[in-house]
Amino acid sequence: MAKVALSVPKGTRDFSPAQMARRNYIFSILRSVFEKHGFQPIETPSMEQLSTLMGKYGEEGDRLIFRVLNSGDFMNSVPADKEHTSSEVIKHISEKGLRYDLTVPFARFVVMNQNELSFPFRRYQMQPVWRADRPQKGRYREFYQCDVDVIGTRSQMEEAGLMDILDSAFQKLGVNVILKINNRKILQGIADALGVSDRFVEFTVSLDKLDKTGWEGVGKELIERGFPTDVPQKLMDIMQPVSSNEAMLTQLKKHLVSEAGLKGIAEMEELLGFIDALELKSQVKFDVSLARGLSYYTGAIFEVSACDVAMGSICGGGRYDDLTGIFGLPGVSGVGVSFGADRIYDVMMELNVFPENIGRTADILLINFSEDSAADLMKMAKKLRENGIASVVYPEAAKMKKQFSYADAYAFPYTLIQGPDEKVAGIVTVKQMSSGKQVQVSEAELLLFDLTQIGLLFI
Amino acid sequence: MAKVALSVPKGTRDFSPAQMARRNYIFSILRSVFEKHGFQPIETPSMEQLSTLMGKYGEEGDRLIFRVLNSGDFMNSVPADKEHTSSEVIKHISEKGLRYDLTVPFARFVVMNQNELSFPFRRYQMQPVWRADRPQKGRYREFYQCDVDVIGTRSQMEEAGLMDILDSAFQKLGVNVILKINNRKILQGIADALGVSDRFVEFTVSLDKLDKTGWEGVGKELIERGFPTDVPQKLMDIMQPVSSNEAMLTQLKKHLVSEAGLKGIAEMEELLGFIDALELKSQVKFDVSLARGLSYYTGAIFEVSACDVAMGSICGGGRYDDLTGIFGLPGVSGVGVSFGADRIYDVMMELNVFPENIGRTADILLINFSEDSAADLMKMAKKLRENGIASVVYPEAAKMKKQFSYADAYAFPYTLIQGPDEKVAGIVTVKQMSSGKQVQVSEAELLLFDLTQIGLLFI
Repeated sequence: MAKVALSVPKGTRDFSPAQMARRNYIFSILRSVFEKHGFQPIETPSMEQLSTLMGKYGEEGDRLIFRVLNSGDFMNSVPADKEHTSSEVIKHISEKGLRYDLTVPFARFVVMNQNELSFPFRRYQMQPVWRADRPQKGRYREFYQCDVDVIGTRSQMEEAGLMDILDSAFQKLGVNVILKINNRKILQGIADALGVSDRFVEFTVSLDKLDKTGWEGVGKELIERGFPTDVPQKLMDIMQPVSSNEAMLTQLKKHLVSEAGLKGIAEMEELLGFIDALELKSQVKFDVSLARGLSYYTGAIFEVSACDVAMGSICGGGRYDDLTGIFGLPGVSGVGVSFGADRIYDVMMELNVFPENIGRTADILLINFSEDSAADLMKMAKKLRENGIASVVYPEAAKMKKQFSYADAYAFPYTLIQGPDEKVAGIVTVKQMSSGKQVQVSEAELLLFDLTQIGLLFI
Repeated sequence: MAKVALSVPKGTRDFSPAQMARRNYIFSILRSVFEKHGFQPIETPSMEQLSTLMGKYGEEGDRLIFRVLNSGDFMNSVPADKEHTSSEVIKHISEKGLRYDLTVPFARFVVMNQNELSFPFRRYQMQPVWRADRPQKGRYREFYQCDVDVIGTRSQMEEAGLMDILDSAFQKLGVNVILKINNRKILQGIADALGVSDRFVEFTVSLDKLDKTGWEGVGKELIERGFPTDVPQKLMDIMQPVSSNEAMLTQLKKHLVSEAGLKGIAEMEELLGFIDALELKSQVKFDVSLARGLSYYTGAIFEVSACDVAMGSICGGGRYDDLTGIFGLPGVSGVGVSFGADRIYDVMMELNVFPENIGRTADILLINFSEDSAADLMKMAKKLRENGIASVVYPEAAKMKKQFSYADAYAFPYTLIQGPDEKVAGIVTVKQMSSGKQVQVSEAELLLFDLTQIGLLFI
């Protein structure tokens, strides 16, 4: 058969065993932290009805949803009297799309299962999502999200709990992070104080660029957008950098007087109080310019950045007062955080903080001396496994050199050799691959050992 | 907003926390068995190029592949001078499809990564696959496969190793199974002995129905298909039931004389020898009528059925001599088994063999007495978690009754209560929910306990 030029679709990836080991390391740490906090896993289908997905992510989001073609004679459903433009045809030939995030499917899940759930419901979900985005470095068309949300309570103890989760998770992963927090109501209060309440969205879009363009850039953009000329200076007065979260609260209290502003300050005071009590190891920064996700967040807003490495945010989240309203269940408040597994992976690679032995195949490779020892080697491997030792028998009596290269290629820490004479004598030779040291031990004794005891042979 | 009738696409499912706990239990046992045998995880993208998928699963399979619509103005690529039938249009508007199984993506992975891999390469893969099949009881459009394959050796030690994996996995899962084995070359030898070598596929299609229709049904079908009239009787002579795998070999030796037949017998003798040496706990049955997957299996064939429950096969597999040939890398032999996670789940539910506490949320619910205890409760929960105890603070000072119902709803084994007087005295009350027993203990002491020590309070 002719050779085919093989590839995976643009923006998607295979994961090798070494990559899987590192990814699973991240997932298992997140899972264990989530479960320690009483979060429970759910999964939703990869495909959702387009009616569930469309209109939830803005116009741009709608365009980025991968659509699944209807099965069978799909063109049969396209009305004959219509022109066959993409926008006309698409309504008739596709009714399912691939999951775009984990939040909308979660909202649908809650509404469909509201009678089986007790609230507050604490769920985590780790699944791939798909976006027909232009692929670029660090941005894929298939990538994993790890979301953790509490739904059904307005208590900010949950915001604090999520900060605790972020802190614990990144401590365990070995990544120093800054946890940035803000509150939509504070942003609203600032807009009120500046007299630009009616242009809130525009105002925050400009403000969100502070990190990138600085005060000058933000001021310039505000003027260009036609905001009153005194707005930039007033904004700088309200937000000027201070030395602590408390000092920022004090400063804001001088300027914010609207209902939203006062509520925002009260919420931030409460949340900072909870966070103080938890004595987190990571720096928590009340960042008044943080303005992400304002089309759905209604209270607290979170963002996490890694220290020591130049990478955008690696987690984001916030409080949404009405997530399930879009599906007919109003008034259910929730708060959640999404971990960007791929970015966390990239950060950890750059910082070189993955544990060393994470990718090894198994503990012992049993060298195959001759075809007629096959059954004995398999029995020995089985006993080793029963003692918790991951074991592989090389399946062919290949040259020693080839078998030892194989052990190196897959980073087996030990090999086990039993030549014909050793077999008669009931002994085996265990070789530690890293040191090259060899130790003879009786077969009977070896088959009582666990991995630690085997390690002790070489000390 | 108006209520929307919510649903998930036909044949797909949400998984609740209780279902996830049971599914993860299965996956984690399989993973641990696979890794003890030195298998390494890989993952491949959910979407593959249609050129990778098409033509690999037969005509029916091609029809069942979910196709993903190209992004953007997809109709623009359809030639204007062609009629817009589905079969014409589809070539131009879709170039990606959803993964149909894990075998073809694995073959593509091996070919694309052949220079980075050392052979034999032992991989496992646990991911969903999608088929646009008619949904019915136990058959879904999105379901998980758990595949374990060794590629790059012809040694039947690997067949035996897979049988060992099947045996260990189902022992650990608490499911009694029969491991059925056969060999394509034996089937070929039987066809040769019957003089119907040239109609091998038709012959095996009829033979495979023996389980369902018995000898009479098979004989009738063979005659209807126009096989010589003496074929059914000769077939019964060759295959008549005997008391053991050895007796079946002896019987076959009397009839099978073709090259394929003799090779098949030799392979089966070797494999049964290896399996004997491993002393498996499950019954291993050499089933001459087992004839699955003959479009790709070239040697051993496996099938697993659960005892004690009426359900089709729950695993299947075999040896394929040329899996990667379709992608231009010929002569690479492999052998593998696929675990049907959904069927295993159903069998385990029917047998009621999932462990009892598998679905519980967390260990302790901290009852919230008053809003002003929030920070203290969060600190206490944090300390409990540091001792390995999964803890949740009820986030509102709701009525006791509501909070205890919540503990019941999520099967918390313990609740922790600290009223104002207890707080002053530095003590807490721990309640064991199953017994209703309550024990008072000093807060300082409790915060040194792990979960086992808390359990000991109630003995």
